[in-house]
Amino acid sequence: MEQVSLNRSHGGSQGVYTHQSKVTGTPMTFSVFVPDHAPGAKLPMLWYLSGLTCTHANVTEKGEFRAACAEHGVIFVAPDTSPRGDDVPDDEGYDFGKGAGFYVNATQAPWATHFHMRDYIESELPAVLAAGFPMADMARQGITGHSMGGHGALTIALRNPGQFRSVSAFAPIVSPLNCPWGEKALGGYLGPDRAAWRDYDACALIEDGARLPELLVDQGGADNFLAEQLKTHLLAEACAKAGIAATIRMQPGYDHSYYFISSYLAEHVAWHATRLKA
Amino acid sequence: MEQVSLNRSHGGSQGVYTHQSKVTGTPMTFSVFVPDHAPGAKLPMLWYLSGLTCTHANVTEKGEFRAACAEHGVIFVAPDTSPRGDDVPDDEGYDFGKGAGFYVNATQAPWATHFHMRDYIESELPAVLAAGFPMADMARQGITGHSMGGHGALTIALRNPGQFRSVSAFAPIVSPLNCPWGEKALGGYLGPDRAAWRDYDACALIEDGARLPELLVDQGGADNFLAEQLKTHLLAEACAKAGIAATIRMQPGYDHSYYFISSYLAEHVAWHATRLKA
Repeated sequence: MEQVSLNRSHGGSQGVYTHQSKVTGTPMTFSVFVPDHAPGAKLPMLWYLSGLTCTHANVTEKGEFRAACAEHGVIFVAPDTSPRGDDVPDDEGYDFGKGAGFYVNATQAPWATHFHMRDYIESELPAVLAAGFPMADMARQGITGHSMGGHGALTIALRNPGQFRSVSAFAPIVSPLNCPWGEKALGGYLGPDRAAWRDYDACALIEDGARLPELLVDQGGADNFLAEQLKTHLLAEACAKAGIAATIRMQPGYDHSYYFISSYLAEHVAWHATRLKA
Repeated sequence: MEQVSLNRSHGGSQGVYTHQSKVTGTPMTFSVFVPDHAPGAKLPMLWYLSGLTCTHANVTEKGEFRAACAEHGVIFVAPDTSPRGDDVPDDEGYDFGKGAGFYVNATQAPWATHFHMRDYIESELPAVLAAGFPMADMARQGITGHSMGGHGALTIALRNPGQFRSVSAFAPIVSPLNCPWGEKALGGYLGPDRAAWRDYDACALIEDGARLPELLVDQGGADNFLAEQLKTHLLAEACAKAGIAATIRMQPGYDHSYYFISSYLAEHVAWHATRLKA
């Protein structure tokens, strides 16, 4: 793990790091904010998975999470959204290939060589963080994310209830099986057998028995992607049916941008902190 | 004035606008955040002047000012730092020409045609805002800025004590007469007669009798530009001599970036709000 930059901010340290990933076969970049803390203290950690086209940088620069993380003593981790580099295949669209890893392990050529974002987030990066950040309490992790990253946060938490104590999302893709973004990405990475997609669909995972203790979702009411791609109501229905306590808040007038995310990310940090410190 | 974009954020509206400027002879872009307010209410306005290489976008995306502006009911205006366009002359350096207007009225060719950022900020843009934002109380304006924009805020406020009720700055260039950035820019825009520069030098203006009721400055202790370019101590000395109540805070470990600015901009908004609402 190499440090790319380190800036003091909001009573803590905002770092950017790279490391050679075994599961993607590429260098990967991520950012970590560590609030000031007493020597020897262990801090809970909140993951933030980003959306289509993003790198670690979008939320790191525009997310407005650091004041809340410093106040509540929470480490904030922002990974990239796909492998990068000249060797990595890409698609002409913004919604597939680089910047659009969808947090899956691809099984189809040519994607299967590098696109292993599921293993990267679930296994490899946590080990890198545990080794590199001794103040991180890996027994107290929460996860959130935006859009494609909200899909990532929900599916990863549903598949790993022991690993993440708290989960929230901003404008998540709640059912890739039922939207154009999901059909293109999961069809491309996993092939035409839609049964193989269910492991990467929050609603299908809940239908198939996966459970979370509770859930917080913020969704902009003026989000252009709501009707065709995000379909928040499918998650509300799946949670209601499964008895999952889901707080799904429609925020009137807010869109899909960081102007929306930054308005509520501090609240999510506080929400996770309450659960991670309980 | 044309609206480029409008995003709901933090309980208000973040807009970006363009207009044809008479004093620069070019289109100019600026951003305005307007907190939600009661019909007919008049809100104070805080100007933020940006630093070298910046446009309106840097602080608009990275400044973390909106939550505080919404809480305190303050409009936030972020202009560009120079005229733009193919007709506008430029310099190879990042510190002169486009993105580096230094808030002066240039008198030297080829700069004198377009580089009239002093008149733009002092006169033209306030009139555009007064006409376009009827909720703006132009009798209650404050001003702040970063680096070159801190220089802009200090000098504009010192020359127009009736126009701005409160002034603060982040890592300002306090004396262009005494640093390489200032010597290059003022020499280029105003010519070799250094007497003509004094109108654009906060310390010289104070020496020459200009006064402010008080002043807040935050300066990063790990700012790479502190010793050679910013020289905060010259402002502290000028204020002490002139009896200006200057609160100049050294913030250990902080650098010159938006990671620093965003850590303290909400405090500045609150500081201005107290004075603008008094």
